[in-house]
Amino acid sequence: MASEILNHAFRLASRPVGLPTRENWDFTEQPVGEPADGEALVRVLYLSLDPAMRGWMNDARSYVAPVAIGEVMRAFAIGRVIDSRHPELKVGDHVSGLLGVQEYAVVDRRGLHKIDPALAPLPVYLSALGMPGMTAYFGLFDVGRPEPGQTVVVSGAAGAVGGLVGQLAKLKGARVIGIAGGPEKCRYVVDQLGFDAAIDYKAENVASALRRHCPDGIDVYFDNVGGEILDAALARLARNARVVICGAISQYNATEGIAGPRNYMSLLVNRASMTGFMVMDYVNRYGEAGREMAGWLERGELQSQEDIVTGLSTFPETLLRLFTGEHNGKLILRVAED
Amino acid sequence: MASEILNHAFRLASRPVGLPTRENWDFTEQPVGEPADGEALVRVLYLSLDPAMRGWMNDARSYVAPVAIGEVMRAFAIGRVIDSRHPELKVGDHVSGLLGVQEYAVVDRRGLHKIDPALAPLPVYLSALGMPGMTAYFGLFDVGRPEPGQTVVVSGAAGAVGGLVGQLAKLKGARVIGIAGGPEKCRYVVDQLGFDAAIDYKAENVASALRRHCPDGIDVYFDNVGGEILDAALARLARNARVVICGAISQYNATEGIAGPRNYMSLLVNRASMTGFMVMDYVNRYGEAGREMAGWLERGELQSQEDIVTGLSTFPETLLRLFTGEHNGKLILRVAED
Repeated sequence: MASEILNHAFRLASRPVGLPTRENWDFTEQPVGEPADGEALVRVLYLSLDPAMRGWMNDARSYVAPVAIGEVMRAFAIGRVIDSRHPELKVGDHVSGLLGVQEYAVVDRRGLHKIDPALAPLPVYLSALGMPGMTAYFGLFDVGRPEPGQTVVVSGAAGAVGGLVGQLAKLKGARVIGIAGGPEKCRYVVDQLGFDAAIDYKAENVASALRRHCPDGIDVYFDNVGGEILDAALARLARNARVVICGAISQYNATEGIAGPRNYMSLLVNRASMTGFMVMDYVNRYGEAGREMAGWLERGELQSQEDIVTGLSTFPETLLRLFTGEHNGKLILRVAED
Repeated sequence: MASEILNHAFRLASRPVGLPTRENWDFTEQPVGEPADGEALVRVLYLSLDPAMRGWMNDARSYVAPVAIGEVMRAFAIGRVIDSRHPELKVGDHVSGLLGVQEYAVVDRRGLHKIDPALAPLPVYLSALGMPGMTAYFGLFDVGRPEPGQTVVVSGAAGAVGGLVGQLAKLKGARVIGIAGGPEKCRYVVDQLGFDAAIDYKAENVASALRRHCPDGIDVYFDNVGGEILDAALARLARNARVVICGAISQYNATEGIAGPRNYMSLLVNRASMTGFMVMDYVNRYGEAGREMAGWLERGELQSQEDIVTGLSTFPETLLRLFTGEHNGKLILRVAED
């Protein structure tokens, strides 16, 4: 049965230099395989588009292996089981996992996590209740550790993680300043997400805006972007500040090597720390975090924001929106109706 | 009486660009003032020459005010009281404090700390029992926190702080790799100070040498130098590594801005931290640390290394040795016989 279904997929054709282009992808059509014992066949419904995907396209040692040339592009996604050879998975069950940029996936049970569409809309499982939510939760609470009344600054503030970080920091009683690109995003994080203020890095000098908005310095800086904005934040740290390194999206397409933070000696003068983390290290605590996040969502104290684009075939262009900043909240590709 | 004594001092004449030159100094001769109530007149015996002095010469906001033009250059020193108007200070007492680059200093009691020449030779109070010792002790034990069997790498390994850091890490059961410039210094840290190995950054590729010497990665990197060596160490971090930012001597005379660590994203991949500290924050624990250090010195388990140059007039040239690396251990200027 399944073998008669044709599956469309985006496979990595070549490794990009700078921004990925159409030429870096092969769009292929092949029959779907049958699930073996312990596997399920899953219809892909929603694909998560993440900055980390750019790194997976490079042939470089990192926390996971690169995607091989010819391989289906790796992607986290939500799907529905349409055939199963594992007793715990029934046809109709909803699951999340690394399903890849394609219409159908055959996946081992151990790579799938069951989710409940009655608790939250499916896209929220890729946003506040998914990786961005867990990243914001553990990065802010475990690494940043803001205290009530402290000043938290977050870059990429209108993005999937940044928007959640700011809201979570507000829930903990901190003052929150967001950094985002353009007046619309700045209005969005203040009016929609409840940040105390926002800095438009495309229109303002970030360093002087931070001096104005953070007269007592920055206690927690949550960095999603790297580059000059990280430098501006380092220059404004308060004593004992914590810098959380979550990403460096300004640098992922750099062709001449990453720019290091010139102001890192501010760590010394201010007795501050800069710490990296990987959300996957907290996998044993996802349940606990998810329950707390779900409670805030249900009570309307937290908003999960998704920007949903429809159509698998738009993948190459939609992915670029991550780097051009043409989205608010979590960027998701809808592959099929549930 | 005192007012008849002529004092010679080095005063800041102009702010250097790059390495300080003779032209940046005024060598002045003036009568010594009388101590007022609560003050003492101190004969300066030993001056500590520190990389931090270069920063004090800049007109930049930092953890202390810059030295003003025309002001006696700030320096930590050891001296002997020759006149006193404070009951706790007797003529003949030995003291440490910020006495300045001069022959005599009039200082308030609160700026002086009494030391005991029977416990250790006076220069040791500027070395293992002074700032370098406290810096190594708290930077390594409080920030770096090496565990037995872990790999510790220290740059500036033949310097005042680096040589102590390596020895302290050995005392805690760590494997210690030093980075230093030239074969003599490398031999010195291995043969004299007991490091497990040394890398000559002037002759070897530091990145590949670190791969060879640290097959399981670096658990603690204690950085005194910044620049390319910091980058090479970042590229070799082990999971959960701690990078201690103590200094960046390779950058202090940079005229085109500091080079930031391009490999800082290694902090993310390796869930590592980079933390700055200031030894003065530990002032309440100097006593505790000093007692432990004195015990190790007495039992021959720790060596305090000093490189002593004689003559106040050599100050401008002797200071440069810090940046050209022409010294082993703590660089000290002897101003007078005790």
